[in-house]
Amino acid sequence: MKIEIINIGDELLIGQVINTNAAWMAEQLNLSGFSVYQYSVISDSRQHILDALAEAEKRVEVVLISGGIGPTKDDITKHTLCEYFNTKLVFNSAAYQDVEELFTRRGYPVTELNRQQAELPENCTGIPNKLGTARGMWFEKKRGGGGKTIFVSMPGVPFEMKTMMTEYVIPWLKQTFNTPFIYHKTVLTQGVGESFLADRIESWENALPSHIKLAYLPQPGMVRLRLSGVGPEENILHNEVGTEVLKLQTLIPEYIFGYDNETLEGVVGMLLRERDATLAIAESCTGGAIAQMITSIPGSSTYFKGSVVAYSNEIKEQILGVHAENIKEYGAVSKQVVTEMAISVRAKFKADYAIATSGIAGPDGGSPDKPVGTTWIAIATPYDVYAMQYLFGDNRERNIRRTALQALNLLRKNLVSQ
Amino acid sequence: MKIEIINIGDELLIGQVINTNAAWMAEQLNLSGFSVYQYSVISDSRQHILDALAEAEKRVEVVLISGGIGPTKDDITKHTLCEYFNTKLVFNSAAYQDVEELFTRRGYPVTELNRQQAELPENCTGIPNKLGTARGMWFEKKRGGGGKTIFVSMPGVPFEMKTMMTEYVIPWLKQTFNTPFIYHKTVLTQGVGESFLADRIESWENALPSHIKLAYLPQPGMVRLRLSGVGPEENILHNEVGTEVLKLQTLIPEYIFGYDNETLEGVVGMLLRERDATLAIAESCTGGAIAQMITSIPGSSTYFKGSVVAYSNEIKEQILGVHAENIKEYGAVSKQVVTEMAISVRAKFKADYAIATSGIAGPDGGSPDKPVGTTWIAIATPYDVYAMQYLFGDNRERNIRRTALQALNLLRKNLVSQ
Repeated sequence: MKIEIINIGDELLIGQVINTNAAWMAEQLNLSGFSVYQYSVISDSRQHILDALAEAEKRVEVVLISGGIGPTKDDITKHTLCEYFNTKLVFNSAAYQDVEELFTRRGYPVTELNRQQAELPENCTGIPNKLGTARGMWFEKKRGGGGKTIFVSMPGVPFEMKTMMTEYVIPWLKQTFNTPFIYHKTVLTQGVGESFLADRIESWENALPSHIKLAYLPQPGMVRLRLSGVGPEENILHNEVGTEVLKLQTLIPEYIFGYDNETLEGVVGMLLRERDATLAIAESCTGGAIAQMITSIPGSSTYFKGSVVAYSNEIKEQILGVHAENIKEYGAVSKQVVTEMAISVRAKFKADYAIATSGIAGPDGGSPDKPVGTTWIAIATPYDVYAMQYLFGDNRERNIRRTALQALNLLRKNLVSQ
Repeated sequence: MKIEIINIGDELLIGQVINTNAAWMAEQLNLSGFSVYQYSVISDSRQHILDALAEAEKRVEVVLISGGIGPTKDDITKHTLCEYFNTKLVFNSAAYQDVEELFTRRGYPVTELNRQQAELPENCTGIPNKLGTARGMWFEKKRGGGGKTIFVSMPGVPFEMKTMMTEYVIPWLKQTFNTPFIYHKTVLTQGVGESFLADRIESWENALPSHIKLAYLPQPGMVRLRLSGVGPEENILHNEVGTEVLKLQTLIPEYIFGYDNETLEGVVGMLLRERDATLAIAESCTGGAIAQMITSIPGSSTYFKGSVVAYSNEIKEQILGVHAENIKEYGAVSKQVVTEMAISVRAKFKADYAIATSGIAGPDGGSPDKPVGTTWIAIATPYDVYAMQYLFGDNRERNIRRTALQALNLLRKNLVSQ
């Protein structure tokens, strides 16, 4: 059984909105054992929607549509769905009650636009929307050769679509289909490029069994290695993939920081929590990015004390107590200064561990001695303090990201070694 | 002339990577007056690539392919392109020289994998890749009824693809085609929901000329209103859309913070720079997110002094000097504490303006009195200090984002009023 996703929205086609919905939908479907064959982004226009539905119907058994329904007037999807399924809109009192309840709870009046949203195609099953005013729609259409194709229309607003997928669409699909078993395991690496990784693990990769595939997923500062296995027996498949992961661990132990949906900030948080230890950060070039990553984890207040973003020399001196003569002699981007920053923030915040960063993120501020991308990272621990120098690239955003990841991985390695 | 984008990659179809490439490509093509008709994401498999190319060839005149070429073995695109265009791979010495130069510059040895990447289909024009090892490929295929369809294959690594698009593909497309004129103007609003905005501007929207369309683009914490005009005369179209934007400014002045690709952090930075003023931040619930936004802007060090992320009461007291009795009496999430945080960080960092945040981001930490989403924001200026309370939702990530945007917009309003 194959699924196709259609995202409707002119805003996607002019690139003002990134299609995060498709990625999320595909991920959730995969986790449930469903396979996404293709996804397409099309415009908010009648003929394009009709064409895309007809093409998808030829390719797959389930078509999931997101976008093009909502309270405003750029939405013609519902009318086009009526045309495609040869039906008409009728007022749905359950849908209207949901909208009324939602608005009463928020203390808002119901508008005429919201009232129109309670009209649904006559032949669909409405799907409740707990977080918004547009219901989802589940259609079943008979196929020529027998069986049926399922079409589901959902809102484009991400959190509304996500709740609807999780609570209704995926459970209903599970009820309807018996899916083959697919198992993915992703090994997360930091600090090594794709080509060199490929050379290091070449003979392991060549020896993989044919039903297990490997994919390289590079991102700024990390490469993810995804193993995908297909097979009839869940337990056997888990074991087979697990065995390959174990082999990989012995080949490149220094680069692996986690698995699947883990993040460096999550792994570091877990390690700190396990050790009952706390963290403080002094950020210069990363400008708050590391603190923001750390605090994106729920419950991080148990191990994260806080951070100082010292974006000027003045603040490095006055708030962190870095010696002015060190800044003068070695520059703010130096081993001396970043080490002082780490020691100082650890002491001031009474933390067990501290990270400090100082670098030239760019695009300006570089010199022949210290070009853009020059970065110092220091780690202070209950036992020692040390600093490492890196030369990243010339892109500000990527330099900030790579510095943040590298700093978290340095701390992680320190934590696991103790 | 219509363009279709095909992104190749199993990693996209299982949702482990978000398709930011398509959004970026579409945006750049639109800015150059090209129109993207559709984009599709397909798997890394021969038959699927062949099918997608054949389908796209029926729909559009230009097919831009991203992904499926690179140094590792999950890449079969190049061989499939040879099959589709009925040609074969030949060693390209210019391509090999590029790879050699890139590796020499980085001090890396050239691997056998890299050598294979210098093989290109015989009938294509190679497109230089300054940042990676895989060249792009430009194919032209004659159409039955005359004319030709252009196919371009590019790497999937975002910064390699972006440089290739900007420096070669878009200029070459401009040389090849005479495009109709499209003009987009996006009005950015913060602090108001989509339905209420729609009601407020209904009569203006109904009176729009037929060649100017409006789209609502909601995001957590903001709604973007995009006007899209099509017409033969660039200047007239700019004026027509400009006139409608002016009308909108008089209808909803309190919500508009900027236009097009502006960001709140960029607008605030510009206003601070114009006033020769500096900013400091004390963040609790936003955990560094505001500092990270501010410092994402190149040159922000001229107006941003720094930030304290005070993630525990202890740090609020010891680093920011908030009175322990205030935290005890009113709680950390209170008007008193957030006001003290703003005053203190402004004084300690010797800044002209300060932002402070304190809230319950969730998922835990709520109480009947102060449910998850309860947030206080304070602004301290050279003239005064004030605090506002908000009740956001129950999603941690969205609460952090909405708090950060609301805080920046409060500061923006203060700056423009002076």
